[in-house]
Amino acid sequence: MTQASRRFWSDDLADLTPYVPGEQPKIDGLVKLNTNENPFPPSAKVIEAIRAAADEGLRLYPDPTSLALREALAGYHGVDAGQVFVGNGSDEVLGFLFRALFQRGRPILFPEITYSFYPVYCRLYGIASRTVALDEALAIDVEAMCRIDPASVSGVILPNPNAPTGRLLGLVDIERLAAHFTDCALVIDEAYVDFGGESAVGLVERYPNLLVTQTLSKSRSLAGLRLGFAIGQAGLIEALTRVKDSFNSYPVDRLASAGAIAALEDRLHFEDTREAIISMREQLAADLRARGFEVLPSAANFLLTRHPAHRGARLAEGLRAHRVIVRHFDRPRIEDYLRITIGSAADNAALLAALDQVLAGH
Amino acid sequence: MTQASRRFWSDDLADLTPYVPGEQPKIDGLVKLNTNENPFPPSAKVIEAIRAAADEGLRLYPDPTSLALREALAGYHGVDAGQVFVGNGSDEVLGFLFRALFQRGRPILFPEITYSFYPVYCRLYGIASRTVALDEALAIDVEAMCRIDPASVSGVILPNPNAPTGRLLGLVDIERLAAHFTDCALVIDEAYVDFGGESAVGLVERYPNLLVTQTLSKSRSLAGLRLGFAIGQAGLIEALTRVKDSFNSYPVDRLASAGAIAALEDRLHFEDTREAIISMREQLAADLRARGFEVLPSAANFLLTRHPAHRGARLAEGLRAHRVIVRHFDRPRIEDYLRITIGSAADNAALLAALDQVLAGH
Repeated sequence: MTQASRRFWSDDLADLTPYVPGEQPKIDGLVKLNTNENPFPPSAKVIEAIRAAADEGLRLYPDPTSLALREALAGYHGVDAGQVFVGNGSDEVLGFLFRALFQRGRPILFPEITYSFYPVYCRLYGIASRTVALDEALAIDVEAMCRIDPASVSGVILPNPNAPTGRLLGLVDIERLAAHFTDCALVIDEAYVDFGGESAVGLVERYPNLLVTQTLSKSRSLAGLRLGFAIGQAGLIEALTRVKDSFNSYPVDRLASAGAIAALEDRLHFEDTREAIISMREQLAADLRARGFEVLPSAANFLLTRHPAHRGARLAEGLRAHRVIVRHFDRPRIEDYLRITIGSAADNAALLAALDQVLAGH
Repeated sequence: MTQASRRFWSDDLADLTPYVPGEQPKIDGLVKLNTNENPFPPSAKVIEAIRAAADEGLRLYPDPTSLALREALAGYHGVDAGQVFVGNGSDEVLGFLFRALFQRGRPILFPEITYSFYPVYCRLYGIASRTVALDEALAIDVEAMCRIDPASVSGVILPNPNAPTGRLLGLVDIERLAAHFTDCALVIDEAYVDFGGESAVGLVERYPNLLVTQTLSKSRSLAGLRLGFAIGQAGLIEALTRVKDSFNSYPVDRLASAGAIAALEDRLHFEDTREAIISMREQLAADLRARGFEVLPSAANFLLTRHPAHRGARLAEGLRAHRVIVRHFDRPRIEDYLRITIGSAADNAALLAALDQVLAGH
């Protein structure tokens, strides 16, 4: 990057600090437990649907309103299609809603430790932010959030379960927040909700300020397809649609739409795989505790864990030397933790074997 | 849309006027010549590649850097992968570059009649704009653009060939613009260049301010897959990447990436189909002229045409009554024109038959 070319950059571009996703290494034989991907393949019906969609109509633009997919999601979640917005992954949905629902004038609010893309969107759009510390058990402190003057913020966003902690809030807490922050949008980012949480989608009818986002990346094994969505009252969905239609008419391609509809239809595959992951998570947590690890209670497809006698960065490095990749965040309060995705049974066994080596100093 | 829900909207959201794409009607048997889709299916190799990609790895995120695809595009266009940016359609690429390269302080410049998404991006980002009138033949007036003080604008963008006119500028004119507007980005939007234009990609080496965008939607028959790209010097690509990584880590999914790489490899299919479209375009232009139409010279996969004795809106309505859909823009200087996509031989014959009916008053 030469200084010369920066003269063509927009004024604040050099100040942006982009999000850094977990690495996608191209090395064979790695045990990849760093980006919360599902160890199971997607439903075979998804592959069939994609094959059929590839055979017909790729020369034509997709439906810019993604109506068939929104209807499928609406039917699944018991809402109207006008209450559903779809995008290229839930990251794009978040990218649209930050622009559509949060204000430049007043800060938005999110937990101190949370999905690290939120501050990136704030910088992209010039939105200020305030954070609320997690409690001593690394749970989101709803009490502290509800002590904040609602008129002082222009929006609230939090993942439930939270990332990277995996800790879950109950719907009672979500309702407390929705009832406290009545004059701004409250966004519940449910990327991981299918692994043990209860969705707030059932609350949108009663709370016009509530928007719930989800993704097919995790619990439907479709990270490679890019499909996220939001559910809320029609006025919030209209806001997102205005931004999307001012940016890209067709972010959801024909194959993603067809695959997503098929994924929603195969409930058995969904139930089987998520139950298997939940069960493997509890087993892995027990196996880690048996090795002296502290493990946060998780309602997600990952565990946040630390060993009292080992630094997090060292453990992550040690695992990598044994070809196991986990995620380590060099951030206050969680710098000694590892975030470990629940992998296949073989992945999890390889992780434990590698950990035993690392703990033994090898 | 109740007024109530608007209180959750960001301050300027109600002022956005989203882009309105050509309609994608779900009615069977329509002759659809309104959105410049390719009448030929994509290469069979694209379908194969998508099927193979669907069978493996959809559970995993795509490569956030899309390196394999950028390398394929770089090889095709004779540049380095660091000079290539890819996105979800060229609309998304445009959405990123408006944010990355144009300034809020000074207006950007584009032709008076051009792709109507440009002013939408300006509103989305709060960027001012100035337009330069087309000349009397509805061509982009390079002379007039080069009379504008380059210090007064923060960017220049134009399609070549222009849309919806189809009129082409030669590379000499592109170079004049690049040499005049040396201190800001000059973007050449080559969505239609493969149908008779010469790409400015060969100029990026010499002009650090030049960025060229293209799409696989039109000349590769992949509108339904969403793949656009930009080529320019590494500093400009880095600017786009910073914005993309502040918005969505993986806008290009695994299937789009695999399909796009296969499309680039099948040069024979590309050459055959584009030559057929160019030849059908010239035939259609002759057939329209034989019916009294004026037809602008086109280097795109569409024609802009008017009949001296018939209003454009009426003709469009009349064609629709005969189940043929074309695009009509209710805008000064082109309100009596129709923009007609080059369809299949059968589509074009149906269009002419319908026009004969409409002109005869049926």
